[in-house]
Order: sequence, then C-alpha cells, then structure tokens
Amino acid sequence: MESRNENWLAYTQEMIERNKFLKHIGFEFTELKPGHTKGKLVFQEFHEQQNGYLHGGMTSTILDMVCGYAAYSMVEQGHLVFTVESKCTYYNRGIGKEYFAEGFVDKPGKRFHFCEGLIYYFENDKKIIVAKCTTTMAVVN
Amino acid sequence: MESRNENWLAYTQEMIERNKFLKHIGFEFTELKPGHTKGKLVFQEFHEQQNGYLHGGMTSTILDMVCGYAAYSMVEQGHLVFTVESKCTYYNRGIGKEYFAEGFVDKPGKRFHFCEGLIYYFENDKKIIVAKCTTTMAVVN
Amino acid sequence: MESRNENWLAYTQEMIERNKFLKHIGFEFTELKPGHTKGKLVFQEFHEQQNGYLHGGMTSTILDMVCGYAAYSMVEQGHLVFTVESKCTYYNRGIGKEYFAEGFVDKPGKRFHFCEGLIYYFENDKKIIVAKCTTTMAVVN
Amino acid sequence: MESRNENWLAYTQEMIERNKFLKHIGFEFTELKPGHTKGKLVFQEFHEQQNGYLHGGMTSTILDMVCGYAAYSMVEQGHLVFTVESKCTYYNRGIGKEYFAEGFVDKPGKRFHFCEGLIYYFENDKKIIVAKCTTTMAVVN
Repeated sequence: MESRNENWLAYTQEMIERNKFLKHIGFEFTELKPGHTKGKLVFQEFHEQQNGYLHGGMTSTILDMVCGYAAYSMVEQGHLVFTVESKCTYYNRGIGKEYFAEGFVDKPGKRFHFCEGLIYYFENDKKIIVAKCTTTMAVVN
Repeated sequence: MESRNENWLAYTQEMIERNKFLKHIGFEFTELKPGHTKGKLVFQEFHEQQNGYLHGGMTSTILDMVCGYAAYSMVEQGHLVFTVESKCTYYNRGIGKEYFAEGFVDKPGKRFHFCEGLIYYFENDKKIIVAKCTTTMAVVN
Repeated sequence: MESRNENWLAYTQEMIERNKFLKHIGFEFTELKPGHTKGKLVFQEFHEQQNGYLHGGMTSTILDMVCGYAAYSMVEQGHLVFTVESKCTYYNRGIGKEYFAEGFVDKPGKRFHFCEGLIYYFENDKKIIVAKCTTTMAVVN
Repeated sequence: MESRNENWLAYTQEMIERNKFLKHIGFEFTELKPGHTKGKLVFQEFHEQQNGYLHGGMTSTILDMVCGYAAYSMVEQGHLVFTVESKCTYYNRGIGKEYFAEGFVDKPGKRFHFCEGLIYYFENDKKIIVAKCTTTMAVVN
C-alpha cells in the first residue's frame, strides 16, 4: 500500500506522540507501515471491568487507535483523520496478560479510509481474538 | 420499564463499584433507573487525542458503560451482561468542558438487551451530541 | 429541518421514480418532508424468508430507502447520495400484513448525513418494531 | 470447520429452497460448506437503484443470505438462525454484470455465530469489492 505522504512515518509518529489518552491507558505502537499498524498492551489492574476482564472500552479505544493511525499513515501531510463510525464485535472475553492489536486500511480513498482492526492475546501459542472492528475514517484537509 | 430484579439498584451499583477502568478515566454515574442510566465526565487533559479533543475511545468507553449498566439494571440477580457488539457514530468533535451521557434499554429481552446511548455537552445552553451508539448486550446466567 | 434545495420535493420524487428495485419489491412512499420520509409495504408471499416471516433483506432494503431519500430531500439539486455504511438491528420477527417505515436525517452535514430508520407493524393497535437502522449517507456532487 | 449437524447439507439446502425472496431477486447459491457459502447473481434491470447501479438493498439482502446460510450449515438439525444485527459497508458502486458473494462463520458459538460476508464483481480479471458485512446470527432451538 502506498501513502500519499512521503513523510508518512514522521507524521504518524508525531500524531501518536500527541495522543494523551493513549499514554494514560498504556498502549504502545510496535510497528508502523503505510496503511498498517501494530501495537501492544501489558494488562494492568486499572484496565478491568466489573469481572476482572479487559474492559470493553479499552478494547474499543485500542481498535480505534490502530485503525486511526493506519489511516493517518496514508493521508497527505497536514490532513487530519476523524472517526466517522466504528462497530466492534466482541468474540471472546479478555483474560490475557498481554494483548496485541493490528489495524489496517482495507479500502483507501480520498474522502474515507475503510479500516479493520483486531485485538488478541495468546493462550499457550493459541491466538484468541478478543474483538474485531470495522471503521470508517474521514479525511479532512 | 420494569426490572427482573427487585434488588436491581444495589446490584447495578455493586457492578459499577467494581469497575476499575471507569475510575481510571474519571466517569461518574449520576442517575440509575431500571433500563436507563445517566452519568457525567469532567474533561481532563489526559482524555485528549492528538488534536486536543475528547478521545474517541473515551467516547466509546462511556457509551459502553451507560448501555451496559442500563442492561445490568434489568437482569436477574446474579446474571451477567456482556457486550456482543456496539456501533458508535461520531456526530461532532468533543470540545466540551463537561460531558453528559445516557444509556437506555430500547428493547429488553431474555437473551439480549438492545441498547442505545448518547454523549453530549452544552455550548451556551445548546446541546451538542458528540456521539451515539447502538449496542447488543447479552445476558448470561 | 430545512433543505439546501428549494426544489427538494420534485428532486426526491424523481429519484424515487427511477428506483427499479423499489418497484420490484412493492414498497411505496406515503410522505416526504425535508429530512423525513414515510412509506408502506403490503406483505406478499414473495417477501418471505425460510420461515414465512418478512425477509431480513426486505427489511434492510426498506430501511436503506427511507434513509436514503430522507438524505436526498436535504441535498442541493443535482447532488447524489450514496450509502457509506448501515447497521440494522432486528428487534422482532416480521409477521405483519402491512409494514410501515420511517427514515430521518438525525445529523445533517455537507459531506454526510447521519440517518436513522425504523420499520414496524401493528398487532391490534400495538406498534411492533421489526428493525431499526443507523446509516451514514455520503453527499457527492 | 465442523458442523454440529451431520445432515448439514440437506438441512441448509432445504432452508434455501424455502426462501421465496431469494428466488424473487434471482440469487443462486453455487457452493455450500460447513460455515462457508458462495453464490452468484446475474444483474438484471430490476436490481437497479436510481442511478442504474446495483441497489444497496440487493447488496444487503445477498450479504444477509450468504452469512445466514453459512450459520445454518453449522447448527444442530431443527435449530433456527436469526439475524440479530448486521453492518454493511459499501466499498464501490455496483456496476458489474455478474456478482459473486461469499459468507463465512468467523467465530462459531452455541448461542451466536459471528459471520462476515462480501460481494464483488470482476472488471477485466480485477476483483472489485462492492460491499462487506459483519453480522451476528443467533441460534434458536
């Protein structure tokens, strides 16, 4: 996938750097490519919902970010990305110690990027998907 | 709307009390009725995304909780509620100082509660909707 | 709600007139206002899915149209409307003889109209909602 | 993927056979496997929306069916499948002569099957995706 911005990496990193809520929840990006991001979360007690599992809001927040920055990596320098809408489907309870998330632009465009994301953990080498999302990202200049 | 649990208020409050991520982000419930919840968020710097607006993950987290506890207020004592899926649509950028959110069970059921939620702020007396959601909550015994 | 097109009624009617699939399934619009449409379906045997209920595809098609033409009634003359995405939630089985549907623009905009729709029937004067949708409509000039 | 029903093929075919709206729109299933279906549509004039493209309701109807019967192929004999909710995202305008659709169970379960589907056509050997869906199917006994 090719970015509209030759300076995409620095631009995406700058946007990530400025995201304060990302830091507040402890998520980290581990890989950035044009139209594709990966990141990691080390589970902490403050991430829990009422039953001790990963909070669904943590899940949706992470999915929003992996998709959002996948979109940012594709747009022209100075253009902004906003979430129009996102649907998250919860496949399995989040009972991992470490979570991995990926987001990608499935259908790039001038006005929208249609993105997909997923978050998972490993239970003895078996990948357990916690949730998937489909998201419309608008490009604003 | 009538709850299946005559002890619904204590049960819902207990579940809210146990939610650690709710505390981590600073959201507070202000009103609980069977099938309907309201809450409030005082905006803080750590809620920001890259442009200084309310992070979309904050929005989706709050919407998940107002709907989730609206569903909890309706189920039998001891039954649990899990988010099956949720779609959030973002109507306006979040640039308020205080946010208000509401969640309600739009269609109750034995196996699912179909819920809707919204989050808004006021700009001089004018209500600005930041986002709305439609959510399927599963009831598990 | 005010339309950007003073000629909105003729423009919307012309678009409805040209819609061949609408005729094929037998749906009829009964009321058009800026940003709000209503219509009616008389149930016929060919609308059935495998259990004799109204087919979910009939439901989603009708919801798409009541929302789509609600959006058409708001745009400038000559502008087109396309469905970006739509989520339908199915509240009750469709076992009516006549169905009524409504679509409205919940949040108008230049580039998108966020719409909502619902379809229902009556069981002795009681309104039974079959399904609701939330839909993003893009405006293209 | 393994079905809970050793008689899954006959059961799924019987359900397809009974679907009258499927016949009314001219869709045909071409391949059935446990948890995976494929089908085909030859475009006809009555499938058109107002601009001569494939109607979005046709798209959502087909996606509902490829997912629904993928779910039917997995459930126990006599159990029924109902669509809980579905989100369709429209990637490209439908301007093909023949359309191909696929549905699959992405996450099977006892109470739900989470399904995904897509519909596409070919433009000189290039696959053009018209739309994708994510759908929650409930299993009812």
